[in-house]
Amino acid sequence: MSLLVIGSVAFDAIETPFGKTDKIIGGAATYISMAASYFADRINLVSVVGGDFPVADINRMENMGVNTKGLQIKDGEKSFFWSGRYHNDMNSRDTLVTELNVLGYFDPVIPEEYQNCDYLMLGNLSPDVQLKVMERIHNRPKLVAMDTMNFWMDVALDDLKKAMKKVDVLIINDEEARQLSGEYSLVKASRVIRDMGPRYLIIKKGEHGALLFYEENVYFAPALPLEDVFDPTGAGDTFAGGFVGYLASQDRVDFEHMKRGVIFGSAMASFCVEKFGTERLQDLQMDEILHRINAFIDLTQVDISLTS
Amino acid sequence: MSLLVIGSVAFDAIETPFGKTDKIIGGAATYISMAASYFADRINLVSVVGGDFPVADINRMENMGVNTKGLQIKDGEKSFFWSGRYHNDMNSRDTLVTELNVLGYFDPVIPEEYQNCDYLMLGNLSPDVQLKVMERIHNRPKLVAMDTMNFWMDVALDDLKKAMKKVDVLIINDEEARQLSGEYSLVKASRVIRDMGPRYLIIKKGEHGALLFYEENVYFAPALPLEDVFDPTGAGDTFAGGFVGYLASQDRVDFEHMKRGVIFGSAMASFCVEKFGTERLQDLQMDEILHRINAFIDLTQVDISLTS
Repeated sequence: MSLLVIGSVAFDAIETPFGKTDKIIGGAATYISMAASYFADRINLVSVVGGDFPVADINRMENMGVNTKGLQIKDGEKSFFWSGRYHNDMNSRDTLVTELNVLGYFDPVIPEEYQNCDYLMLGNLSPDVQLKVMERIHNRPKLVAMDTMNFWMDVALDDLKKAMKKVDVLIINDEEARQLSGEYSLVKASRVIRDMGPRYLIIKKGEHGALLFYEENVYFAPALPLEDVFDPTGAGDTFAGGFVGYLASQDRVDFEHMKRGVIFGSAMASFCVEKFGTERLQDLQMDEILHRINAFIDLTQVDISLTS
Repeated sequence: MSLLVIGSVAFDAIETPFGKTDKIIGGAATYISMAASYFADRINLVSVVGGDFPVADINRMENMGVNTKGLQIKDGEKSFFWSGRYHNDMNSRDTLVTELNVLGYFDPVIPEEYQNCDYLMLGNLSPDVQLKVMERIHNRPKLVAMDTMNFWMDVALDDLKKAMKKVDVLIINDEEARQLSGEYSLVKASRVIRDMGPRYLIIKKGEHGALLFYEENVYFAPALPLEDVFDPTGAGDTFAGGFVGYLASQDRVDFEHMKRGVIFGSAMASFCVEKFGTERLQDLQMDEILHRINAFIDLTQVDISLTS
């Protein structure tokens, strides 16, 4: 099934305790598309870059099965640029530079051939843009998933709430869930947030795994204990891409498939953090992906038969 | 099988965002013994209290199946007392009072009828006392598990290392594992620590679950997502008690049973935090324990069949 992906395509410059990069490609939609490309048949990208964005990187995405017809290229202008430095524990970072550039006035255009998309992933962007995308698609997709961040809760809460009413799955981290709900307990937070619209809620906890809430059910997927996290940039977007890409590949929307999607997302995120930026996502083999997914399953496998 | 438990039996005064207590009973060995009493046949307690300790609480432990013959009672002296205040997030706390009292010169005496114990749980105490207990037991138990804390790493690292050489399972939290190993990555930390002695290592991550390491294997058990954590005091000791109590009840020492033990420990800890102190551990029914264990299993249950 086809997957429509909206989000930033950008430059990042990253500094971690293991080293630093010059400008490399990044952006939520880049990570989402690359991760999803291993599963979904067709990925249709909607985003915007400046004329400074390397054509080689656009071609690489095309070669990975990402349709870039919806990637607007603004000649003579600059792509979105973010630069950050991670602390030693890799769980916190300082933003050094944020230049919105072409993303500051992004008006998403949906090419005609993208209409009738089956699955829609709204990567982290202004809720106003996320709303515009949903308005400009003629038929509602089978599934709409959305990411957001605390910044939008601070500056655009009304639009965010409008967007949330229209989505099936919200994917956020624990800190964002607490801010959005005003509840510290994630169980309580999950109820408040699902009352705002999304039937399914995924709360990412970084190295501590992810929780999936649906009706009275909760599913927990661990993160794989890793030797080292080399660069966490894009891990959350990669999770979302693996998750929604898996669902699109199976074309099933129910709790059981969502659980499997969370494992696929976690597995893809565990690759992402092994190298800088998108490097590790560019040339994965399906064998190693399945091997990694089996490692996730083994991690929580236990044989207890109980009768109560 | 019989289980020998060493650790503090004490008074606590606890303040959480939900309320505060006067002096109530606490102490590592109290939580361990109570949690283990639901599984192990015989629990033999070695500890020390002052004459101020209520006989009713000693009788309650006896009624739960805990042999208190090894509980020394120092008339005219005072029991160990700890008082603390939890912050709003329940993940950090301030110690308000620590009065060692009788625990300051605790010389553990093993009653003759405690000899030939099958399983030994060394609750958090001075490594010097933990070593004395191991020396004073004539035959090595089938399994020796040990808890410790960062305080002993600071003030008694040599003794701690001596004790670690003699134990099968070490149970510590993530912060302690990092301090003990000098490694931030828990995967790397687990290797360094197992090289110090214990074949099995359990790293508790509080609300984020627990990891069990053995040879090249790792098992992850989540914590149950709870509406509220009312009082986290004793949760780690309760985990250890449920874990070692389950192993003693099954009388099997292998990775599969350790995994199940981690789930039993996690389930008991999830009860512990629902009320102040030991209150919730005093009158559990086996039905509700098994029901809770099933909830843990459901939490990570997923049906994926993959061939790679």
